[in-house]
Amino acid sequence: MSKLYFTYGAMNCGKSAALLQVANNYEERGMTVIVAKPAVDTKGGDAVTSRLGVSRPVDVLIGAGDSVRDVVLPVALAKRTSCILVDEAQFLSEGQVDGLHEIAYGDGIPVMCYGIRTGYLGTGFPGSIRLLEVADELRELRTICRCGKRATMNIRKIDGKPDFADVGHQLAIDDGTTDAVYESVCPRCWHQAKMEWLREKKRN
Amino acid sequence: MSKLYFTYGAMNCGKSAALLQVANNYEERGMTVIVAKPAVDTKGGDAVTSRLGVSRPVDVLIGAGDSVRDVVLPVALAKRTSCILVDEAQFLSEGQVDGLHEIAYGDGIPVMCYGIRTGYLGTGFPGSIRLLEVADELRELRTICRCGKRATMNIRKIDGKPDFADVGHQLAIDDGTTDAVYESVCPRCWHQAKMEWLREKKRN
Amino acid sequence: MSKLYFTYGAMNCGKSAALLQVANNYEERGMTVIVAKPAVDTKGGDAVTSRLGVSRPVDVLIGAGDSVRDVVLPVALAKRTSCILVDEAQFLSEGQVDGLHEIAYGDGIPVMCYGIRTGYLGTGFPGSIRLLEVADELRELRTICRCGKRATMNIRKIDGKPDFADVGHQLAIDDGTTDAVYESVCPRCWHQAKMEWLREKKRN
Amino acid sequence: MSKLYFTYGAMNCGKSAALLQVANNYEERGMTVIVAKPAVDTKGGDAVTSRLGVSRPVDVLIGAGDSVRDVVLPVALAKRTSCILVDEAQFLSEGQVDGLHEIAYGDGIPVMCYGIRTGYLGTGFPGSIRLLEVADELRELRTICRCGKRATMNIRKIDGKPDFADVGHQLAIDDGTTDAVYESVCPRCWHQAKMEWLREKKRN
Repeated sequence: MSKLYFTYGAMNCGKSAALLQVANNYEERGMTVIVAKPAVDTKGGDAVTSRLGVSRPVDVLIGAGDSVRDVVLPVALAKRTSCILVDEAQFLSEGQVDGLHEIAYGDGIPVMCYGIRTGYLGTGFPGSIRLLEVADELRELRTICRCGKRATMNIRKIDGKPDFADVGHQLAIDDGTTDAVYESVCPRCWHQAKMEWLREKKRN
Repeated sequence: MSKLYFTYGAMNCGKSAALLQVANNYEERGMTVIVAKPAVDTKGGDAVTSRLGVSRPVDVLIGAGDSVRDVVLPVALAKRTSCILVDEAQFLSEGQVDGLHEIAYGDGIPVMCYGIRTGYLGTGFPGSIRLLEVADELRELRTICRCGKRATMNIRKIDGKPDFADVGHQLAIDDGTTDAVYESVCPRCWHQAKMEWLREKKRN
Repeated sequence: MSKLYFTYGAMNCGKSAALLQVANNYEERGMTVIVAKPAVDTKGGDAVTSRLGVSRPVDVLIGAGDSVRDVVLPVALAKRTSCILVDEAQFLSEGQVDGLHEIAYGDGIPVMCYGIRTGYLGTGFPGSIRLLEVADELRELRTICRCGKRATMNIRKIDGKPDFADVGHQLAIDDGTTDAVYESVCPRCWHQAKMEWLREKKRN
Repeated sequence: MSKLYFTYGAMNCGKSAALLQVANNYEERGMTVIVAKPAVDTKGGDAVTSRLGVSRPVDVLIGAGDSVRDVVLPVALAKRTSCILVDEAQFLSEGQVDGLHEIAYGDGIPVMCYGIRTGYLGTGFPGSIRLLEVADELRELRTICRCGKRATMNIRKIDGKPDFADVGHQLAIDDGTTDAVYESVCPRCWHQAKMEWLREKKRN
């Protein structure tokens, strides 16, 4: 049975490399995959790029208001695709995730989504929340906190200091207009950084 | 490191039995646990009851507007608790889950929550969405669909027929005022039932 | 697709309760399961008994030299079984696990085995080793160490003190002939206890 | 707490890429890792190479009779290593895995091993069996069968046909002396191929 999968993790945990590996695994067996990405993620242009130094062009860019049945399914069917891979899936809308659910369980094409679970405020993105609700398999991709523990959350830093101010978007998209830097951390380091920021804020 | 855990599953998958087993495991080692439950879940009164025939009184009922720091933490500290177990965690509010996150990572007491992932409409409850976002470990408790596959979703039935009408609450609380019956199903059976219901509705 | 599952854990982690819950889940949906157990495990007689206080008769006792195709498959087919549940699976022989693998992938009946991963010497049992090699899904059932960490190993104690002497069998079967007591512990506590026992032994 | 991890999978599922990603994750945070490999694996020489096109030199080659305390631990300590990564871990001896267990739980350095679970006969390697017994966390790395299902086993092919003859070693090491080709498959395809091979053999 085809399924909807969600592989999630903190920032920079290797999601794109994992996606590229799965694409490779399918293609080595003579099967076809297509790679899709929300158009809002302009990082790397029309490619999925891993920090390991591997890259691959995206087959379909999903616009903010697009129906995945309209833009993804026809390409998948035309290419007789064995699997649809979606990078940066946290930027999908709820309705787009529902569309992917339908493709997996109605049309019978497996869909594997990769994305960030939460932003620096510790809250989910529309796409990741919906995937956590309906994906058949949730898999965590792990990375490491500076303290040595497993990192599952993210911190936003301005001038090297954690900053939890709500700047109106969960995660800055790396378009050069901000000098915020992100760091993936364990829940305890995240919690401590937030408490310190709150205390500091109170003082000023 | 103490953590926040979320064990989720479809209805009637054995969440309460799993919780009671963990309580047993701790107590056999001479440790103390407390069991909490949102007060809105009136099923079984002030007890956690498994359909296997095992039961246990609840130590703390969490009211709709309660702060878990005010009602759960003092009991946990007074009893020198090794673990806080929360049943029916889908009914927690977002803020209550944040409070449990703080207890796990700020106060250092492990918190294990058990709950339903989504209601019959396929959408999450406030408590389960927040737990899916911030719990350090997500574990699925599996049950079986009538088709033999793994059940992860739920169907609401009126007079034996699936009914996807939005009745204003995700999941009827079993208080005798409704004759809806729930069945846990796999995503494909859920999707088929919904498509049939939509077609039927269109016809009428 | 039917599969071979192995749910493993340290001693007293709740394996029998988990098995009884799965049996319950199937039967609530009107399906049939059979429960099998190696005959060598005389604990609880011909029943699977959980320390939670729940119990259920065993349908098939598997003798040491039995072929599972001869003793389990006919009962499963006669009862039109949806799932075969095997308790204390660590005591199966390699060949019996291979037979269950064949039943799952050749005859199409799902097989779920529950057992202990390793004995107090930290080495596997024939049945658990073979299941770790070939089971399609490995699931850990967790319990807690006295230090608060996750317990995955076991210690054998004589007069309250850890004893790592190799007594010729991995795990005493609780038949009243030994006063060894077992405790499930985390790998670090297991390692420390073993180092202390080795030092003590050297001194004497 | 440092742990011993085992990430296992069928052949060509992307184990080396996963290892290289973890190394990258640590080093991006300014931490040090060392990469070790059994010397018997001559594939790729003294490097860990992923079919994605990424590669990295090995820090320590572990000889067949080496003690990991003698050859791995000193390098790890000298480099103040945050994590020891071991590729092709199926080729380790039992004693070497026990040594890595001791390094993780006695010396406090996390050890992550990557390897193949079983060879084409469906039986484990000494290193993978021992890791399945004692690793604290078992994680499966998935790949795909030609039938579209999850591949967890391997088939050996001569002239394009599955061959289950026991050639005295579980897995040919790719040294140019054999023209066997390997394919990773799901348990059902593995089982069918084996049954066909047995029937064919009987006929001749």
